[in-house]
Amino acid sequence: MAVKTLEDLFHETLKDIYYAEKKLVKTLPKMATKAASPELKAAIKAHLGETEAHVERLEKVFSVMGWKPVAKKCEALDGLLREADEVMAEIEDANTRDAAIIASAQTVEHYEIARYGTLVCWAGELDMSDAVSLLQMTLDEEHAADKKLSQLADPEVNQKAAA
Amino acid sequence: MAVKTLEDLFHETLKDIYYAEKKLVKTLPKMATKAASPELKAAIKAHLGETEAHVERLEKVFSVMGWKPVAKKCEALDGLLREADEVMAEIEDANTRDAAIIASAQTVEHYEIARYGTLVCWAGELDMSDAVSLLQMTLDEEHAADKKLSQLADPEVNQKAAA
Repeated sequence: MAVKTLEDLFHETLKDIYYAEKKLVKTLPKMATKAASPELKAAIKAHLGETEAHVERLEKVFSVMGWKPVAKKCEALDGLLREADEVMAEIEDANTRDAAIIASAQTVEHYEIARYGTLVCWAGELDMSDAVSLLQMTLDEEHAADKKLSQLADPEVNQKAAA
Repeated sequence: MAVKTLEDLFHETLKDIYYAEKKLVKTLPKMATKAASPELKAAIKAHLGETEAHVERLEKVFSVMGWKPVAKKCEALDGLLREADEVMAEIEDANTRDAAIIASAQTVEHYEIARYGTLVCWAGELDMSDAVSLLQMTLDEEHAADKKLSQLADPEVNQKAAA
């Protein structure tokens, strides 16, 4: 599809993040299996539930716009996940592997924060108020998921949680 | 290199972001050439100067730790930049291309925010106070660069800037 207008760009970026969210629904359970800390496992599983809701919300945005939900291969997310896979496969020590899993998950969260931030901005410019609300809800959840991961990465917070 | 400890993981992640920053020094001038808006061109060029300083700061971190500065291919950043290249090449309309350039640049900023956030956290846990200061300086600049891009993407801000 040739991108000529901001609406075309919005549409293409929606397909990109739709691919990303659908791929994450498949990837997060593997990440939870590799995590050693029960808190990290629980956080990843909770975010899987949210991610499934993000897929549905994106389908609503496609529907509101009268578009078919189509996923477009997102090389950026594939690169992030390949990097995560490598690092998880090669670390034997459980605490170090958990630190690596949190770090990789945060690169994914930040990719999504950048993408949803952009989509909310463009939807506003294009006067798509329904899309703004749906995308903003997901953006807020991605921010919260990133914050939760930072807390899990902080040893002081972990010590307090374990006390 | 086998990753066994948090220090190994810090070292490997440092090589990853070193590759990313060095690649950005080569990529940002191309991005500035493709940008139409003078404000966007200026912002990218200003960030190029900062990025050169980030490379030097990373070299200081390697040096403080007694390590050689080595770059390790970062598939995630390569994916982000391939996506940026594609989108820039295929959009003819200048305003739409600028919107796409800002969006791509923000995915790169967020990758760096995630990576430096993690490195600052690990450097703190490992009691590397010099590394914490150096990495925090860059993290603050990446946050500021992302905010600047959001302002450039906001048409109201642009209208005010043009008034």
